[in-house]
Amino acid sequence: MTVELICVGTELLLGNIVNTNAAYLAEQCAGLGLSCYFQTVVGDNGERLSMVLRTAMDRSDIVLLCGGLGPTEDDLTKETAAAVCGRELEMHEPSRTALERYFADRGMEPTQNNWKQAMIPRDSIVLDNHNGTAPGVILETEGAKVILLPGPPNELVPMFEESVAPYLETLSGQVICSRTVKVCGVGESKVETMVKDLIDAQTNPTLATYAKTGEVHIRVTASAQDRKTAWKLMKPLVKELKNRFGNDVYTTEEETTLEKAVVDLLIANDLTVSCAESCTGGMLSARLINVPGVSEVYKTGYVTYSNKAKRKTLGVKKGTLQKYGAVSAQVAEEMARGTALGTKADVAMAVTGIAGPDGGSEEKPVGLVYIACNVKGDVTVKKYQFSGSRSKIRESAVSAALILMRRCMLEYFSRVTFGKKD
Amino acid sequence: MTVELICVGTELLLGNIVNTNAAYLAEQCAGLGLSCYFQTVVGDNGERLSMVLRTAMDRSDIVLLCGGLGPTEDDLTKETAAAVCGRELEMHEPSRTALERYFADRGMEPTQNNWKQAMIPRDSIVLDNHNGTAPGVILETEGAKVILLPGPPNELVPMFEESVAPYLETLSGQVICSRTVKVCGVGESKVETMVKDLIDAQTNPTLATYAKTGEVHIRVTASAQDRKTAWKLMKPLVKELKNRFGNDVYTTEEETTLEKAVVDLLIANDLTVSCAESCTGGMLSARLINVPGVSEVYKTGYVTYSNKAKRKTLGVKKGTLQKYGAVSAQVAEEMARGTALGTKADVAMAVTGIAGPDGGSEEKPVGLVYIACNVKGDVTVKKYQFSGSRSKIRESAVSAALILMRRCMLEYFSRVTFGKKD
Repeated sequence: MTVELICVGTELLLGNIVNTNAAYLAEQCAGLGLSCYFQTVVGDNGERLSMVLRTAMDRSDIVLLCGGLGPTEDDLTKETAAAVCGRELEMHEPSRTALERYFADRGMEPTQNNWKQAMIPRDSIVLDNHNGTAPGVILETEGAKVILLPGPPNELVPMFEESVAPYLETLSGQVICSRTVKVCGVGESKVETMVKDLIDAQTNPTLATYAKTGEVHIRVTASAQDRKTAWKLMKPLVKELKNRFGNDVYTTEEETTLEKAVVDLLIANDLTVSCAESCTGGMLSARLINVPGVSEVYKTGYVTYSNKAKRKTLGVKKGTLQKYGAVSAQVAEEMARGTALGTKADVAMAVTGIAGPDGGSEEKPVGLVYIACNVKGDVTVKKYQFSGSRSKIRESAVSAALILMRRCMLEYFSRVTFGKKD
Repeated sequence: MTVELICVGTELLLGNIVNTNAAYLAEQCAGLGLSCYFQTVVGDNGERLSMVLRTAMDRSDIVLLCGGLGPTEDDLTKETAAAVCGRELEMHEPSRTALERYFADRGMEPTQNNWKQAMIPRDSIVLDNHNGTAPGVILETEGAKVILLPGPPNELVPMFEESVAPYLETLSGQVICSRTVKVCGVGESKVETMVKDLIDAQTNPTLATYAKTGEVHIRVTASAQDRKTAWKLMKPLVKELKNRFGNDVYTTEEETTLEKAVVDLLIANDLTVSCAESCTGGMLSARLINVPGVSEVYKTGYVTYSNKAKRKTLGVKKGTLQKYGAVSAQVAEEMARGTALGTKADVAMAVTGIAGPDGGSEEKPVGLVYIACNVKGDVTVKKYQFSGSRSKIRESAVSAALILMRRCMLEYFSRVTFGKKD
């Protein structure tokens, strides 16, 4: 079954906003097993919209339109779709009542324009809008099904989830489910090589890789008659991926980020953390603190950009700075030791590097970063060479720090557990 | 003159990525005075791409395609466009040499596939790609001009700026120039009210407002035969906006961000800065440190998320924390005073608040933030109530802190200057 998207809005044609609705709807439709071959953006213009809609109805089973359902004269998606489908608009009493209630609840008066939003093409399915004034509409013609949705994402998304997805599931008679295996600290090409045989052999479920900063996400997708069967189909493949990548898999939960996985590890093992940052300037702490509940484990962060701050705040030795320079394994190590000493944290991270665009040399080029992780006195220092803009280099360094921290903690746990066994 | 966009890529149809290229190209084309009525997304499929391209060439003067210029067999935008325009592909020696150099510079070997990227449709204009391996192509047919650009934004954007924009300017016979007046700390609706008369009276130049976190950007756009005339047309309007918004205008330079304006102010007045952050957890320091050259003025940052860290690191009194709570004007002030004392910075910032989703109460709801700015001992504390997600609240707090810091510095300068006059 094929679906096609038409997004209506002059602000899209002018590039004032990015078309996130198209990405959302496309992803949802793919997840429902529908094939999408075309997306179109057109302005609030009846003639051009009619042309685009006719073309879409000729070549696709389902046409999803979004935008242009507002109360003003410019908004003419519903009027145009009704005309193309040969339906008249009629006052829809339940929608009229819903509109009245919407305004009454907010202590506002509807304007004369608003009643236009309760006019619905004859013989269509009306979709309630709990977050705005424009109801959605499904027009079932002999050829295509035409579905009209409001443009604002906070109205479109809940309406799609509540009403459109169940309708489309019934049409297609199958569900598509996905799970993501998130791998950190392994390069994209290595991941691809390691799963090539699985990709070559795939039918259902299928497998795809997506590169992120410091991470690769492997998405497993299965289609089946129901959710439970799809889940069952994916299980052996997810297990195989976990076997192949071992500890480098930090989660198989959709909503778990790398920083959340790291914070969860700290909480589960009752460890506290402090950070000292030079070139990343607070970004590592900021990312950890984006995880709700981090207050249990986060102690203190230092941004020590200057040599003086490194000496004064973290106790880095003047001699070390002079001999090796601020961007060196030795200084990273002293930063991590000083942070642990000063804050009594179990885990202390330190980052020092050259983010550019200036400050690089042949010996120490822009992008050179040293990261140290001190787990209860055991310090690991790693050297990295990143590329890209100043902010890209800083972002890469933060991801690398989270990955190093996770790895050092896992190694520490395996040593401790081994020790206990003795 | 009309332009139409065709973005080629299966990942767009699947909703795996958001179509930021379309927004970028649409905005650039609008800025060049071109009218865009249609945008289409299509997959890497020769038949469907041909169909879409033919339709676009029939109804628009210029067709911009992006994506599908890569080295693999899936990439067939160039092959399809050449076929539709009736041109054969030929090896283009300068592109072949550029490819060889690209790989040699990186110490890599080109694969057999890569040579396909140096095959160019006969009689076309080749656009150099300094950031990747796919050259751009302009096909001038009797009807439309067809322009092919690579999909990755870091290749597309520089190629558009270097080669495509000047080409389109020549075609349209006019230039469109823009300047942005950036206002901070004034709400969007207030800005709109303050410029309503100017918008109502606009012809050339025109004026539009864009809301950002804590800022409103007012874009002035003029069209003229040449850049100099356009610039002259904009001058009085830019001056008028500067008069109306006074000190709230932090720059009229396109590339100057709020944090850069703040860092420039510190540098110009030989002032140093330190930050203490609770709910923003390092984001304020991170944003300041994103400005190259900040090392001249940035002293030390502290992330003191816990009460203990606030006491130990910044010297906030236990009694103050107990009496007023960590999120209070009193604690913000003590944090800012402690930071100045400990780091001897001229300017010390402190942020404390409730970022949520938990931790709010009726008296102190999620989104409540206190920010203190200490300029050489004079402390200003402001209370804010932000809304949105945890990360949105933190982002708003960082912008508010930069705005407060800028305002306090400007007030300090005016007092000092006034004092000197006495």
